[in-house]
Amino acid sequence: MDRPVDRHERGEAVFRQVFGREPRPGSHPEFLRITVDHLFGEIWSRPHLSVEERELVALTAVALARTDWELRGHIGAALHLGMSREKIVEVIIQLAYYGGWPVANNGLRVAQDVFAELDAATGTDADHDR
Amino acid sequence: MDRPVDRHERGEAVFRQVFGREPRPGSHPEFLRITVDHLFGEIWSRPHLSVEERELVALTAVALARTDWELRGHIGAALHLGMSREKIVEVIIQLAYYGGWPVANNGLRVAQDVFAELDAATGTDADHDR
Amino acid sequence: MDRPVDRHERGEAVFRQVFGREPRPGSHPEFLRITVDHLFGEIWSRPHLSVEERELVALTAVALARTDWELRGHIGAALHLGMSREKIVEVIIQLAYYGGWPVANNGLRVAQDVFAELDAATGTDADHDR
Amino acid sequence: MDRPVDRHERGEAVFRQVFGREPRPGSHPEFLRITVDHLFGEIWSRPHLSVEERELVALTAVALARTDWELRGHIGAALHLGMSREKIVEVIIQLAYYGGWPVANNGLRVAQDVFAELDAATGTDADHDR
Amino acid sequence: MDRPVDRHERGEAVFRQVFGREPRPGSHPEFLRITVDHLFGEIWSRPHLSVEERELVALTAVALARTDWELRGHIGAALHLGMSREKIVEVIIQLAYYGGWPVANNGLRVAQDVFAELDAATGTDADHDR
Amino acid sequence: MDRPVDRHERGEAVFRQVFGREPRPGSHPEFLRITVDHLFGEIWSRPHLSVEERELVALTAVALARTDWELRGHIGAALHLGMSREKIVEVIIQLAYYGGWPVANNGLRVAQDVFAELDAATGTDADHDR
Repeated sequence: MDRPVDRHERGEAVFRQVFGREPRPGSHPEFLRITVDHLFGEIWSRPHLSVEERELVALTAVALARTDWELRGHIGAALHLGMSREKIVEVIIQLAYYGGWPVANNGLRVAQDVFAELDAATGTDADHDR
Repeated sequence: MDRPVDRHERGEAVFRQVFGREPRPGSHPEFLRITVDHLFGEIWSRPHLSVEERELVALTAVALARTDWELRGHIGAALHLGMSREKIVEVIIQLAYYGGWPVANNGLRVAQDVFAELDAATGTDADHDR
Repeated sequence: MDRPVDRHERGEAVFRQVFGREPRPGSHPEFLRITVDHLFGEIWSRPHLSVEERELVALTAVALARTDWELRGHIGAALHLGMSREKIVEVIIQLAYYGGWPVANNGLRVAQDVFAELDAATGTDADHDR
Repeated sequence: MDRPVDRHERGEAVFRQVFGREPRPGSHPEFLRITVDHLFGEIWSRPHLSVEERELVALTAVALARTDWELRGHIGAALHLGMSREKIVEVIIQLAYYGGWPVANNGLRVAQDVFAELDAATGTDADHDR
Repeated sequence: MDRPVDRHERGEAVFRQVFGREPRPGSHPEFLRITVDHLFGEIWSRPHLSVEERELVALTAVALARTDWELRGHIGAALHLGMSREKIVEVIIQLAYYGGWPVANNGLRVAQDVFAELDAATGTDADHDR
Repeated sequence: MDRPVDRHERGEAVFRQVFGREPRPGSHPEFLRITVDHLFGEIWSRPHLSVEERELVALTAVALARTDWELRGHIGAALHLGMSREKIVEVIIQLAYYGGWPVANNGLRVAQDVFAELDAATGTDADHDR
């Protein structure tokens, strides 16, 4: 059993591992602390599932929740953790059958947006990269 | 592009791989055929995700849908594909944070039932096996 | 604009038309009155949709909500309004694609139960009737 | 049992019948092919429900899913298939009672947007047309 | 049992009490009338729950429904009824655990937008007011 | 910032305050610990909402989630915290309008069951007590 300061540091480390950046203090600061402490410091760091498997679970759950802003974040996390665009798209295609066409059409629209912004940022020709 | 008969046979093979049994003609026969043809013959057999990864996505989606009967089936499938009880429980614990406590409490209750029935069927002492 | 007594009587009449029986005072009496007054007396009796079309909308919504007890009631209502078993099953099959496989598997299971009970009650051989 | 090429052609024909336009290759091409093949080539073309009834089911499901972009598409499809604006609004009003006020307020806002854009495109005075 | 005109007037009064403004005839006029008559004239005016408690229930339900436009309205209503910003945020934080992180992240984003607009409108320094 | 042992003891105290009993080690022990530590030790014990207000939020969320077993628990908690049967029923009636009729019909059915069991256990005549 560890001290609170331990879990916060561990949470920040897992957060960085997943999202590839520091937690942004932009949104509500207290909820950010809870997210780092509980979700990343105590749940994502538990055994039995790898971080990549946890992202597969999170990506699925967030796509089903149809909250675009959050979905953008987890598509970014999946890419950061090394999931290919094809694999992300494939998860969403499978969700057409487990959550319905609206979930998949919405998810693919968000994914295309994220991919296009990345291509624009890196000057990559989108037709090539996919 | 393959002939309809091909996808049905492939669907049955993938179904057996996932659930460890033949598709049961018990429920509605036409929907069973669609399930084998579309879902298993054309989706689960697509590239980019392994069958184990697809089960992780399906288990997540079905736990979030809170349809107990279906969830029992996918907990069985996960076990058949070699996912440990600890890992199944861990997916559901993570869903407490991505889908809410009611999803997790419901999912763990179903999981405990499935595990207990398996232990009863095999004469295993539950306290041991877990 | 009609008097409260009018809408209650109209609500009871529409309720009988849809479900083929009197509203049962069994459950919470005040909510039953609200259901008869608002839902059947003022909404189901509005123009632009026939009662059969409204049942198609209600059956779809209730199947997606995955509340079995309520779904049983609306499968009964659909049958009472003359919708065939094939048509009810077809709505649920379409919902596999618009709400996901858990919705359809759950809905078909409930439908099979309702059909089997009806066959048992009328002494019909299920294999014949379908 | 038909060859894959048949279902794709039939799917395109049903898609055109429902949406009044060719499938747009804009979004993810592989999911578009699956949508045409499975959803329109094999499900919308099944018996027991007319295309108008299937649109009533789809419109209901998509309004309940609260995915605005998809809902815009199905309000357009409903209009194309001859459903009046009053009837579309009436479906959404009924959903206030079967899916809750947030579903209805969201759906009516999207419907008003679609109607206003159509009026702007055709130079119709909105106050007249409704 | 009151006459229809009574419930409409009562509904308008409760609507003003909750939202601090007249019902806006901007959106669909018939649904606005139903909202005033049924929801505010007959439900919000029932006994056993105070208007503040009803807003707590409504805010919770609308945050879980993830319909941003509606959520903005109920955050405004909660503020108008005297709920502090801290309390509104606290409801959404609790919903992280009862509805999942996507619900809370989405809700807090909407709340921050509403608070920021209010601060901009009143010339308040956001850092002060919170 | 407190030590882990503090939050666990505080969590157990809040749990007892809400449910009127010790946490039952019956279900999954690790998730029970997380529930006591995170949900009750760190969230229910935060400021800005009273325990009674938090139960109103939880009851609403769980009724909307349609997980009967969990709903039974929170109806029991609400009663234990002093919420009257009329008030619990009233929350569910309001949810007919914010989450749809299936949510309310399901919730009222569960509530009637809980009330009837309590009456049977205490030998109270149900017609009297309500």
